[in-house]
Amino acid sequence: MKKYDVIVIGAGPAGLVTGITVKKYYSEKSVLILTQEKGGLVPCGIPYIFNKLNSVDADRMGPKSFVDLGGEVIVDTATDVNMDHKVVYGKSGDTYGYEKLVFATGSQPAKAFFIKGHDLENVFYIRKSYQYIQDLYIQLQDKQNIVIVGGGFIGAEVAEQLAVDEKKNVTLIESESQCFSKAFSKELSKIATEQLRHTHVNVLTSSLVKEIRGAKNKVEKVLLQSGEEIPADAVILSVGYKSNTELAVKAGLPLNVMGAIKVDSYERTSVKDVCAVGDCSQTIGFLTGRSDHIMLASTATAEARVLGFNLFGIKIKKNFKGTIAVFSTQINGFTMASAGINENTGKDANVDFLTAEYTDIDRHPGTIPGASPLTVRLNFSPCDGAILGAEVWGSSSAAEIINTLSLAIQKYTTVFELISFQIGTHPLLTGAPTKPVIIKAAEIAIGMLRNVGK
Amino acid sequence: MKKYDVIVIGAGPAGLVTGITVKKYYSEKSVLILTQEKGGLVPCGIPYIFNKLNSVDADRMGPKSFVDLGGEVIVDTATDVNMDHKVVYGKSGDTYGYEKLVFATGSQPAKAFFIKGHDLENVFYIRKSYQYIQDLYIQLQDKQNIVIVGGGFIGAEVAEQLAVDEKKNVTLIESESQCFSKAFSKELSKIATEQLRHTHVNVLTSSLVKEIRGAKNKVEKVLLQSGEEIPADAVILSVGYKSNTELAVKAGLPLNVMGAIKVDSYERTSVKDVCAVGDCSQTIGFLTGRSDHIMLASTATAEARVLGFNLFGIKIKKNFKGTIAVFSTQINGFTMASAGINENTGKDANVDFLTAEYTDIDRHPGTIPGASPLTVRLNFSPCDGAILGAEVWGSSSAAEIINTLSLAIQKYTTVFELISFQIGTHPLLTGAPTKPVIIKAAEIAIGMLRNVGK
Repeated sequence: MKKYDVIVIGAGPAGLVTGITVKKYYSEKSVLILTQEKGGLVPCGIPYIFNKLNSVDADRMGPKSFVDLGGEVIVDTATDVNMDHKVVYGKSGDTYGYEKLVFATGSQPAKAFFIKGHDLENVFYIRKSYQYIQDLYIQLQDKQNIVIVGGGFIGAEVAEQLAVDEKKNVTLIESESQCFSKAFSKELSKIATEQLRHTHVNVLTSSLVKEIRGAKNKVEKVLLQSGEEIPADAVILSVGYKSNTELAVKAGLPLNVMGAIKVDSYERTSVKDVCAVGDCSQTIGFLTGRSDHIMLASTATAEARVLGFNLFGIKIKKNFKGTIAVFSTQINGFTMASAGINENTGKDANVDFLTAEYTDIDRHPGTIPGASPLTVRLNFSPCDGAILGAEVWGSSSAAEIINTLSLAIQKYTTVFELISFQIGTHPLLTGAPTKPVIIKAAEIAIGMLRNVGK
Repeated sequence: MKKYDVIVIGAGPAGLVTGITVKKYYSEKSVLILTQEKGGLVPCGIPYIFNKLNSVDADRMGPKSFVDLGGEVIVDTATDVNMDHKVVYGKSGDTYGYEKLVFATGSQPAKAFFIKGHDLENVFYIRKSYQYIQDLYIQLQDKQNIVIVGGGFIGAEVAEQLAVDEKKNVTLIESESQCFSKAFSKELSKIATEQLRHTHVNVLTSSLVKEIRGAKNKVEKVLLQSGEEIPADAVILSVGYKSNTELAVKAGLPLNVMGAIKVDSYERTSVKDVCAVGDCSQTIGFLTGRSDHIMLASTATAEARVLGFNLFGIKIKKNFKGTIAVFSTQINGFTMASAGINENTGKDANVDFLTAEYTDIDRHPGTIPGASPLTVRLNFSPCDGAILGAEVWGSSSAAEIINTLSLAIQKYTTVFELISFQIGTHPLLTGAPTKPVIIKAAEIAIGMLRNVGK
């Protein structure tokens, strides 16, 4: 049995970044990544396989950078772990010894057992598997009527991409009154849903699936609770993801209430020398310290960097208490992004906050060809003015502006400080220096907080 | 004589934002802006008048937002100020009384007295005046050979825009070995100069003008020290800007060594109730506290916000010690930006710093149509890893990423902290979560600072 300093189970973003960070900064350590598939997919790129990339191979993500650093990759499925003897058992019959073990087993689509007919032929999920998606990509080519259940990011993005092919009738069914309602505020969810409606997707909100019906075991239609019937040659169920924890549970690791592997701030489980990172491990809210369940590649890789640098002792202090959760997407060419607390997460956790919003053009003067509107919304403490959350939408600049605001949240920045925030502006690239959207929103916030005029 | 609570002299970005902030948050105060021209221009938009906007009026900037808030604007040139009696004298013969006075008199192109022939006909400057630029715009229409002297932002941007018209021969003469060498590092200046060379501009670096020659008082050619002669129907001199301080000096306000009005952190001069803001007032380096001379609309407006909120007593602490100076531009469709210390400003002030750099694609996977390279360079303290400066170039995302880094500088962020920086990523909008350019550059920095592998 070969023994490694580190074994990482899983080659998704969390596993890869853990492996790369360790090999880069602790090059003498031997690191093995065990993976079920030789090459994976860029997870958030999957929706774009169906149109923008128009190829499964264009979305591949492999362990090359890790291997180039001297890391080893073995394609084998870990079937069990003995944490006393520090051994991982592979499906191949091989065993692998470790000094440090990292679970990076990721997540998978939640099965929609509650929907009758979920097991019919041509009912699919968006699995993060090259083989599965390659098969799905081929299967969907000749399907005309496609029904997608679930209007979160994956469901909505897949729907938007499939609907570019005007020969297809794509219907999206969402149980809430708006799509994206978990990540976005009510207002932004509404905007996002409207944008989706401007594409060729038939969006049905506040709609519950009663049953998927078929003939000869093949799907034929989707029945809604309302009685409506939608013809379907294929159904894609996108009703959430759940952590892959089967192996961890079998090994004896405890899970939290959300079904994710319990870890401390440095991704260490309760068992010495065993860590868990990414979608399979717990996240906690940056403000409340309570369990939430954020599954984002960007969150996973931030955790993986913290883990990689600190796997052999804490060297670099983690500078966030929990997960801010920064989401961004583009639907119908319209960009939307959020970070931190919004009215859903905030109300749920009883967080007291106020909201200030400002809209302007993303270039200056507004006569610059191609200039388009951009809105910043700040959610801030009514007490000290600290920024607790933000949303940005409109122009594609929103995707980087949300990161500035994420840093502001992470560094405990108040709306008062933003008055003197020094930014760079340029006619072809940004809004005007006289009214930068972040700062103008902060000014409105200050107006709400203190009567500075007196 | 009408008396105002506040008189602002100047309606550029600094004057306008001061007026707007005061009227918005202290609405009962009467505020007058005195301006020489009824409507001004967006200063940084001026180069784009010559092609992208192809109109002077498209670049107008007026006091509408200020007037809408109840502010008063009078077109009159302030010719003198009596600070004892708190009176401003106008060229019109009118006088204006004030409780608080704000100089926002801006800057103007430095005259190139040292160049023989600078006073010939068809030798121009880039003045921030609607009338002047309208005249220049018309004058340049039928000029074929145009020579621009000075390869800073304004000179280079004007050259790039004029050269889009292929009937024109546009030559840019820069005395340094690269253009943009004041704002950018050697490496980025080189890249910027190369981009400019990819346009139709004939860029002559390390070149000094000996003389501008003409016949019948009209310019005909530019002679270089090298002996080269360049035919010229028009010459634009863009060799820097200087603060407009004539009025302030006449009134008795002291200037600093750079020729700017001396002010404290809240833009207050040494005379009670008299302030100065924007290009006419001093800036000091955020790191050194020494005088520098940054003239940027974005800097001016940040100062104006601080002034506006604090004009009637300090209410909101300014959260920067000095000017970070965030520059951005786009030449030949290639974006370049910088913030804080670079090798020029750093060496000059004897700042010890190290540099780490990372390049990746601005979308993910890199196969996304339109993806292009993006580089982040961090200048950081060799001691504590604090980020002291940054440059970002390539994709247009650079213009917002530099603002994230400006906030990082402003909030005393170290490269160690950036390991756990939580960002949002999306295939159509940003680079990959596995290798965000800011964070990868920080990782390289950490590798240089501490042997974390031991």
